[in-house]
Amino acid sequence: MARRASTRKRRPRNPTLGGGPRAPNYRKLTNPFPPVSAFSEDRIEDIHNNAFVVLEEMGIRVLLPEARKIFRQGGALVDEDTGMVRIGREIIVEALKTAPPEFTLRAGTRERDLEMKLGALTFLPGAGAPHATDLKRGRRPSSLSDYRELVMLTQYFDALHMVNPLVEAQDIPTNLRHYSVIETQLTLSDKFPSAYSRGSPQTLDTFEILKNFRGLSDDEFQAEPWCYTIINTNSPRVLDIPMAQGIIDFSRHGQMTVVTPFCMMGAMAPASVAGALILSHAECLAGLALAQINNPGAPVCYGAFASNVDMKSGAPAFGTPEQFQANLGSGQLARKVGLPWRCAAGSSANINDAQAANETQMGLWSCIMAGSTILVHSAGWIEGGLTVSFEKLITDMEVVQIIAELCAPTPNSEDDLAMRALWEVGPGGHFFGCQHTMDRYQSAFYDPLIADWSNFGTWTENGEQDASQRALTKWQDIIADFEPPKINEDRKAEMEEFIAKRTAEGGAFPVS
Amino acid sequence: MARRASTRKRRPRNPTLGGGPRAPNYRKLTNPFPPVSAFSEDRIEDIHNNAFVVLEEMGIRVLLPEARKIFRQGGALVDEDTGMVRIGREIIVEALKTAPPEFTLRAGTRERDLEMKLGALTFLPGAGAPHATDLKRGRRPSSLSDYRELVMLTQYFDALHMVNPLVEAQDIPTNLRHYSVIETQLTLSDKFPSAYSRGSPQTLDTFEILKNFRGLSDDEFQAEPWCYTIINTNSPRVLDIPMAQGIIDFSRHGQMTVVTPFCMMGAMAPASVAGALILSHAECLAGLALAQINNPGAPVCYGAFASNVDMKSGAPAFGTPEQFQANLGSGQLARKVGLPWRCAAGSSANINDAQAANETQMGLWSCIMAGSTILVHSAGWIEGGLTVSFEKLITDMEVVQIIAELCAPTPNSEDDLAMRALWEVGPGGHFFGCQHTMDRYQSAFYDPLIADWSNFGTWTENGEQDASQRALTKWQDIIADFEPPKINEDRKAEMEEFIAKRTAEGGAFPVS
Repeated sequence: MARRASTRKRRPRNPTLGGGPRAPNYRKLTNPFPPVSAFSEDRIEDIHNNAFVVLEEMGIRVLLPEARKIFRQGGALVDEDTGMVRIGREIIVEALKTAPPEFTLRAGTRERDLEMKLGALTFLPGAGAPHATDLKRGRRPSSLSDYRELVMLTQYFDALHMVNPLVEAQDIPTNLRHYSVIETQLTLSDKFPSAYSRGSPQTLDTFEILKNFRGLSDDEFQAEPWCYTIINTNSPRVLDIPMAQGIIDFSRHGQMTVVTPFCMMGAMAPASVAGALILSHAECLAGLALAQINNPGAPVCYGAFASNVDMKSGAPAFGTPEQFQANLGSGQLARKVGLPWRCAAGSSANINDAQAANETQMGLWSCIMAGSTILVHSAGWIEGGLTVSFEKLITDMEVVQIIAELCAPTPNSEDDLAMRALWEVGPGGHFFGCQHTMDRYQSAFYDPLIADWSNFGTWTENGEQDASQRALTKWQDIIADFEPPKINEDRKAEMEEFIAKRTAEGGAFPVS
Repeated sequence: MARRASTRKRRPRNPTLGGGPRAPNYRKLTNPFPPVSAFSEDRIEDIHNNAFVVLEEMGIRVLLPEARKIFRQGGALVDEDTGMVRIGREIIVEALKTAPPEFTLRAGTRERDLEMKLGALTFLPGAGAPHATDLKRGRRPSSLSDYRELVMLTQYFDALHMVNPLVEAQDIPTNLRHYSVIETQLTLSDKFPSAYSRGSPQTLDTFEILKNFRGLSDDEFQAEPWCYTIINTNSPRVLDIPMAQGIIDFSRHGQMTVVTPFCMMGAMAPASVAGALILSHAECLAGLALAQINNPGAPVCYGAFASNVDMKSGAPAFGTPEQFQANLGSGQLARKVGLPWRCAAGSSANINDAQAANETQMGLWSCIMAGSTILVHSAGWIEGGLTVSFEKLITDMEVVQIIAELCAPTPNSEDDLAMRALWEVGPGGHFFGCQHTMDRYQSAFYDPLIADWSNFGTWTENGEQDASQRALTKWQDIIADFEPPKINEDRKAEMEEFIAKRTAEGGAFPVS
């Protein structure tokens, strides 16, 4: 039991505050958790092979003639009368060979660029809701103003990596909405933007605006993904016209297509995880194949979003064990095809309560353990996607930020071992005032976004605010203090001019 | 693309409802998630070795003379003037050799017995709170009535595996409280019970009551663990009198001792995860060694409970990234010593809101990924342990049950692959009415405890209840319908007689 002189140090005379404030880097995350499996490798192989049976024998109904033509060119059997397309597994295998396993997403600035590959981790807020809600203004059909505010919140949080269509700008006519959506994203954020696939005219408008705003030539735009779209198949086994057009347009122009069947077990998919995965996998492979036949090498993401319905009511449920297992299984399938992939959390709760928090966090962990690359609906999504809650976006971001913290290594320097502090503080003493604590008091620990750790007395004196009430203050502060990214004013003026011209011409109606 | 006739099946004429109700088995769980590390193996070795430096060179102050005597007999250097004990690593290594890596906990019935070993998973509700709160009766100093109700809730949920001291029965005098506590546990539950270590007189009373109630001889009681105690060291580096007595009494009688330093980083431990783990590990090893020197082979659990304080206020925080990392690191250390181990979740929130839900679930996942065997404070614990909330116990149990569901394999039979259903339902159709769904509509999916998945309109019509309000109804229903386990009325009468006699004799005051 010889003393080690080097580790022994008595209390310094005058502990002094030191160290700078915390500056965590949430911008580029690598998932530190090993992927977890829901099925044996054999069973995943069975699911994979059965998905081929679905594509080869049952077929998928493709509503867009151009898409059927591309599938036929790729070797699929097409019945023009019924729209049914049967796709041999060799076609899928070839398509997966040309899909790039790694690529870079180009944002407004290089610091916001993102690597797409298995192991990378990006978070996106809730998307696609027709309603917005907050404690100040209540629940309402969502507007452009809501969308603008939610894009500001998205821009504010470094742990949100892409901009997405959080809510519908329902006050903007559908022939003009896509202009507002892309303009909002480009002027309020420098993160990687999204576009709905609602027909080629809207898509090509969006590409034109984005390309010019980023100052890119046609070739530069074509060479790398500058935006993305989410493609939802109409499960079971239908690829509709706007979705098929989206795959064709985005892949043709080298932009990222995320093919995500939305398979509710017991409704649009079988009432079993394995059955739903067969359907989801088959539909996803069909979409990926369409992109690759159309333009080999186009950047694509595997996508999956399967959960179950309440068998008594048919209501969609999220954060369930079945969603968890489906996400883990989808991760196995994504790794099998070797592509970056998109998964999702979510909640069916109607307000930002304990149920809402628990469902979304459960979904987040399922995606993390499933190794998903793009984690959609990470924050704010309630009512099974019918509403984005401003307060829930904030309370969920606490969880997202904590997970982002865990992506960095646990501090483990000699100084972190703290042997001097252990010598300094005697039995029954405390570490509040020792030099080791002073040196790191601003940076040692995560600084919470919204959590209130005060004791019951203090909390009561301060007005007994629950997490949602504190979140109400927080999002209002963020929006009040919002500073948009620096943008090129000339290009902004050009964008406005283009939009004015296109608006005068009647815009572009969605295709259906 | 040949058809596989065997997988093809057209729609049956008359789908009929089938299958029985869900009957999940939450009683014996194996953790399905692989353990995750926070540190490299080298760094864990450093932490382990530095803990030896703490024990050998800095020492631990042991306040109970009998404990110091045992340590001296085991070879430690003892300074009787200061109470400081310095423990050589060879003493720890010997102690760890006799600590059993696997043993069985004996409950009131064999179906409630539990295997203690790395990989097993048990959940316990929040423990040790001086207050109880619920939406009906408000926040108050906790009483025996509260404790009785919370034990009923513990008994009700199969996914809670042991009974613990959820709240203090503050209305019972301290010399008699231990009688009420053990009587409550034995009459309202057949799960593995707990006892506070508040001095030998109380401990021996409890052993006597338990042994007789279970109908055991002295030898039978001694041979296997029939109850457990949690030992908290007084960090940093103090083992106080009742805690040391607890280790001695429980180990001497072959009952389970769980040695859990409570190390708040920045307060009772260094302001770093690695530093806190060195201290926690050292203190735990000292406690384990005391048990093993006292009675080699006594059943013990490694324990750890480290989180950080808010550096601005000193308030304890839970569900933080630092707690997560500390739990992962503790799991590495527990696996290094090869013992079953106890970890904990928790929340600092003051009510059952989104913060409370998120903090506890974050803590739960850290324990799950850390591979902990006994997961304490899984449900109900708020205010950093000052209060158990009845409603939070319910909303947390939703999360615990979902994790328990994930401990079973994902269903993967041929029937789960659902190829017949996939044939049966055409493109754009739905699976609601197909035979595959009918066959499993009662058992396919987890049945939620408290989650409300109804849509916004229905939820509004039904009174806009949040999760806490629904939980209020739920726990009241459980208590109203509570059926205690079958007990031997003769032994119950004997217990009451014994307690009456001891009460008349003045009971047993806690030792401090």
